[in-house]
Amino acid sequence: MKPNSNTGNTTFTHQTVPTDYVDVKGVKFAYRSFGKQGGIPIIFLQHFTGTMDNWDPAVTNALAKNHHVVLFNNKGVSTSSGKTPDTISEMAKDAIDFIKALGYDQFDLLGFSLGGFIAQDIAANYPMLVRKLVLAGTGPIGSEGITQLESVISDGYKDGPANALVNLFFAKSAKSIEAGRAFMKRLQLRANERDTPSTNETVGAQAKAIITFGYQKDDERKQLLAIKQPVLIVNGTTDLIVPTINSYVLSQYIPNSKLIIWSDAGHGGLFQHHEDFVREVEIFLGTQV
Amino acid sequence: MKPNSNTGNTTFTHQTVPTDYVDVKGVKFAYRSFGKQGGIPIIFLQHFTGTMDNWDPAVTNALAKNHHVVLFNNKGVSTSSGKTPDTISEMAKDAIDFIKALGYDQFDLLGFSLGGFIAQDIAANYPMLVRKLVLAGTGPIGSEGITQLESVISDGYKDGPANALVNLFFAKSAKSIEAGRAFMKRLQLRANERDTPSTNETVGAQAKAIITFGYQKDDERKQLLAIKQPVLIVNGTTDLIVPTINSYVLSQYIPNSKLIIWSDAGHGGLFQHHEDFVREVEIFLGTQV
Repeated sequence: MKPNSNTGNTTFTHQTVPTDYVDVKGVKFAYRSFGKQGGIPIIFLQHFTGTMDNWDPAVTNALAKNHHVVLFNNKGVSTSSGKTPDTISEMAKDAIDFIKALGYDQFDLLGFSLGGFIAQDIAANYPMLVRKLVLAGTGPIGSEGITQLESVISDGYKDGPANALVNLFFAKSAKSIEAGRAFMKRLQLRANERDTPSTNETVGAQAKAIITFGYQKDDERKQLLAIKQPVLIVNGTTDLIVPTINSYVLSQYIPNSKLIIWSDAGHGGLFQHHEDFVREVEIFLGTQV
Repeated sequence: MKPNSNTGNTTFTHQTVPTDYVDVKGVKFAYRSFGKQGGIPIIFLQHFTGTMDNWDPAVTNALAKNHHVVLFNNKGVSTSSGKTPDTISEMAKDAIDFIKALGYDQFDLLGFSLGGFIAQDIAANYPMLVRKLVLAGTGPIGSEGITQLESVISDGYKDGPANALVNLFFAKSAKSIEAGRAFMKRLQLRANERDTPSTNETVGAQAKAIITFGYQKDDERKQLLAIKQPVLIVNGTTDLIVPTINSYVLSQYIPNSKLIIWSDAGHGGLFQHHEDFVREVEIFLGTQV
């Protein structure tokens, strides 16, 4: 049972799909569900501080041509009710509650940054739920550098909030900055029914979860070795938030993976290289296009 | 002027193309040239000890559908005359002598392992000659681990020469070993006019060149930064000969690159994943297919 009246309605896009809501365990989850009807859906797991509005329509709309796409705000984030937990494992459980409430027993996950930490937890600990996994700008338990989150974010904001995402998600070349500005414009394409920003409480809980994940140890890489699903790993060469070497570590231990790293790109390499990213995802998911 | 009677003859394949010869500076270079007529050719630069017969027809024939493909034995190797030099830079000069003798002023390079060291030298030092560069199972000047070449090769031969290439080019899983055996069979598809094995003198000179390259220093990564061409870098996660971290280093410093690393694959990842490799190369070269 998919309670969402939009599910399967291919006439909606990232820009036009109404936000819908589903209640689970006392939490009202906000989501947007659009694209091709039927098949295994792609569930998008968002980055630190991000809402549904932070997904790039160049990616979501392109993937929606061949897949059902589900964006959502996890518990406590923006238009979803409840209190954002401060651990990755609780965020993973919340995400599963939400996805199951939509009626999906199996799905593909696309996790970006914090969303990638959550996606790994779900794939490793609830393997029957996940068919395939896309991990962008992310890393394993104990990822090098992510305990420095707060100073990295502060640096990104040093010339004002308007430039923060370009500073934090893109490289320093003119070409990458230009791609960053194009990305920022695309984030504004959806005009109506936009999400509210994450609250300070949510941001604080997420930061704590990320930094804790960075201090955690998994010396034997048990979580990565437990991920038996096919995994596509992508990043730019100069990821400031989850340094790129962490993507390399993912590829060294996840048994069935393909790693892609684009030069002159950062944390948001999937957005800078959205055409190549979508092409790789389509091939990876085995879409007949 | 292309002196080769086969050039542009699309009826030949890896298996059927006659070996041709061209004389340059007193050296008789053996080569095989086939595939689509016209356009920028792909010149293949071979690995340590390898001859033209060591190229995988699954790769060469697939690329020959849309490109002119040129395999050759560098100076002193197998059926080419002369003395194999013991430095990468001399091998690069020899390769350029050969390619220019075929009449090409610009070309794409596909360098595997030792061939990748040579390809980097050509791209950095003779930039006008090279349009695009594919680097497989290779690494930069000072590559970590390649000074251990002799012990790694000895280990690979410990259960006899018949298994050496599978041991050295593939991972240890049943799936990768099976792919290795399939690769070995494909290497036998060409029945006639096969190359003679590299002599001990050639193997010794190449080993010296590789180990010297491994002990060389380029702390500022000047050679990688000098490679301005688009570069596709590929490897498996467990390369024994040029450890995979070297591919990561290439991607960190070559300004315009895309790195791909396949799990459960080794040095010969391009052969294990020949379908994905060819697909990526075609996209990278901008082929309209």
